[in-house]
Amino acid sequence: MSESRVIMTVTDGVADVRFNRPDKLNALDEAQFRAIAATIAEIEARRDIRCVLLSGAGRAFSVGVDLDSLASAPALRDLMPRTCGEANLFQQCAWGWRTLPVPVIAAVHGYAFGAGCQMMLGADIRFCAPDAELSVMEMRWGLVPDVAGIALLRGLVREDRLREIIFSGRRYQGAEAADIGLVTHVAADPYAEAMAMARIIAAFSPHAMRAAKRLLNLPWETSNAAMLLAESREQEVLLASENHAEAVRAARDKRAPTFKD
Amino acid sequence: MSESRVIMTVTDGVADVRFNRPDKLNALDEAQFRAIAATIAEIEARRDIRCVLLSGAGRAFSVGVDLDSLASAPALRDLMPRTCGEANLFQQCAWGWRTLPVPVIAAVHGYAFGAGCQMMLGADIRFCAPDAELSVMEMRWGLVPDVAGIALLRGLVREDRLREIIFSGRRYQGAEAADIGLVTHVAADPYAEAMAMARIIAAFSPHAMRAAKRLLNLPWETSNAAMLLAESREQEVLLASENHAEAVRAARDKRAPTFKD
Amino acid sequence: MSESRVIMTVTDGVADVRFNRPDKLNALDEAQFRAIAATIAEIEARRDIRCVLLSGAGRAFSVGVDLDSLASAPALRDLMPRTCGEANLFQQCAWGWRTLPVPVIAAVHGYAFGAGCQMMLGADIRFCAPDAELSVMEMRWGLVPDVAGIALLRGLVREDRLREIIFSGRRYQGAEAADIGLVTHVAADPYAEAMAMARIIAAFSPHAMRAAKRLLNLPWETSNAAMLLAESREQEVLLASENHAEAVRAARDKRAPTFKD
Repeated sequence: MSESRVIMTVTDGVADVRFNRPDKLNALDEAQFRAIAATIAEIEARRDIRCVLLSGAGRAFSVGVDLDSLASAPALRDLMPRTCGEANLFQQCAWGWRTLPVPVIAAVHGYAFGAGCQMMLGADIRFCAPDAELSVMEMRWGLVPDVAGIALLRGLVREDRLREIIFSGRRYQGAEAADIGLVTHVAADPYAEAMAMARIIAAFSPHAMRAAKRLLNLPWETSNAAMLLAESREQEVLLASENHAEAVRAARDKRAPTFKD
Repeated sequence: MSESRVIMTVTDGVADVRFNRPDKLNALDEAQFRAIAATIAEIEARRDIRCVLLSGAGRAFSVGVDLDSLASAPALRDLMPRTCGEANLFQQCAWGWRTLPVPVIAAVHGYAFGAGCQMMLGADIRFCAPDAELSVMEMRWGLVPDVAGIALLRGLVREDRLREIIFSGRRYQGAEAADIGLVTHVAADPYAEAMAMARIIAAFSPHAMRAAKRLLNLPWETSNAAMLLAESREQEVLLASENHAEAVRAARDKRAPTFKD
Repeated sequence: MSESRVIMTVTDGVADVRFNRPDKLNALDEAQFRAIAATIAEIEARRDIRCVLLSGAGRAFSVGVDLDSLASAPALRDLMPRTCGEANLFQQCAWGWRTLPVPVIAAVHGYAFGAGCQMMLGADIRFCAPDAELSVMEMRWGLVPDVAGIALLRGLVREDRLREIIFSGRRYQGAEAADIGLVTHVAADPYAEAMAMARIIAAFSPHAMRAAKRLLNLPWETSNAAMLLAESREQEVLLASENHAEAVRAARDKRAPTFKD
């Protein structure tokens, strides 16, 4: 049943999303790809979710594509049709986290390989266990990273290191991964730290948070002039919003604000 | 009187610009925004300034917008008109440093919050006291950074950390701020170190320096081909310049060069 | 004789390219520029080269332009004609490494100054001796870096540090250079480490490697949508390739793969 392949529970605006194929280290077969894409679509449609926490059940975040399984699904080998906006189904499982209207935090442990690594890169912010192993390892199979990896990495990793990551197929661990940009933070308990940040984010005005993510998701090639104008356009709406007024009132009253979704 | 809100003294080509509202930690009300924009306009028009050093009088660089004051200036809430080139008045106070034809170095101490932090980001290079506190804290008010912060940060901070800075509203201090790109250097005496670099810059050919800043200020979306052509165009003019000839002569004569503005 | 100015030997798919003007610390006169451009053109035309290792014979990688020599070649002062694709002859000696269809690794020791530094930046990945000295020092001559330096650096070094590098004309050494992005790695024996990585790269599928470099060489201003589509287009071809099938077979047979060029 594809629903159980991904488990989502929503508490106080935080969607705790867990890949749930632990016996296969969350390897990605067709059912897993479809379950992830369906989860992204559900989150996109809901107004009560303010932040997403993404992790993997069992011993790994995800070891990537289940090659045996995909070999028996030849229809999926037609990669060109854009079945999910700008992306195909595979890319959507990484790119879709980036394009969601709310922040996504990943908690990474064990392994994040290939498509699993690229899914992790789709999150806005990543916490990673010190001994987690990360690799964009497509080169080992005579392939290139095609699950949005290059589109995502160009904003995260400088060009020389990006080329090394892809050309060498090397594995990276915690501290080095954080230094070069594969993950944001190393944390002994990545799930706990990611959840702490998700709660901070979920406590802010959801309108401001969605506006911030829209601004940060403007196309790569956006000109400076267009970026400046977009900042002003978003702010003008926020300044007139009830949630901004509530933030100001709460600060003056020295109480926690209560925001409407 | 708006003139005294910003103090500028020019010595040997270095414009020492100081925000001068120390009783309010250089908070930005309408008069302060207008004084800063006027200072930028004056520098832009002068040929005798080769480098700018930007700092704040008193205990802080700038704590950002003076919300009380702006609440009583409703006309300023119309953020969309581009009253200063690509920017509105607020954005000009950050973006304007970036678009000046000469390098701008910021010396940051105490606090740089919100619009104050974004003004700092408009400088080309930043020196920061170890205990200075920096934050793009608009999220705390249910707002987004709209003082050119996103346009400036995308070239300075990688995407995951940029999202954390904006989503979390966190404060950053010296060493971490330098590591992630909010400031360039940590310095026990940021003013002294910034002045030392400003003097080095002011001693080079002003024509070469302005050409370098023009190249580095080419629009974000400039293609590689256009960038290569622009390098050649600037260099061809410089190779025929008197200041280049003087640099070569001075090196051969083992003396300091004397450049014309 | 211009042929001896650059020495190239190809072994097991690795082209070991050495600048060979050691008595002048590999300074660049017209003959040297032409020999380098000719070497790049030869590599581009060959199918048997899978990776390039770039280094300098003698005590330095390259100290940059030989000003005395160029002063007597006034025809070269016309920088605008694009004689080598998007570049002029000088730029081609840096930009050409970047645009080659195979990865290029530089091993840097001694000095890499001016145009020599920019040639180094054209490699995909750089290994650098701890005591090597690197500088984009054009500012000292009243000039700007025009050997593709700005086009190459914008993907490697964040904007504040890039401005400092160019405005100050400073020299950087090993650890700091790696931290800010001028080089990828510091290595006690940069040639040995660069060769080790070149051999790893040359052992992978040459079709996958060329596809990866094409993707990473897409124009700076490429939109995310176009990047995602390009990933899919390259992968679809690779999935049907004999070299991919060989990589899968070899992994299952627990043997080293044998790829066709």
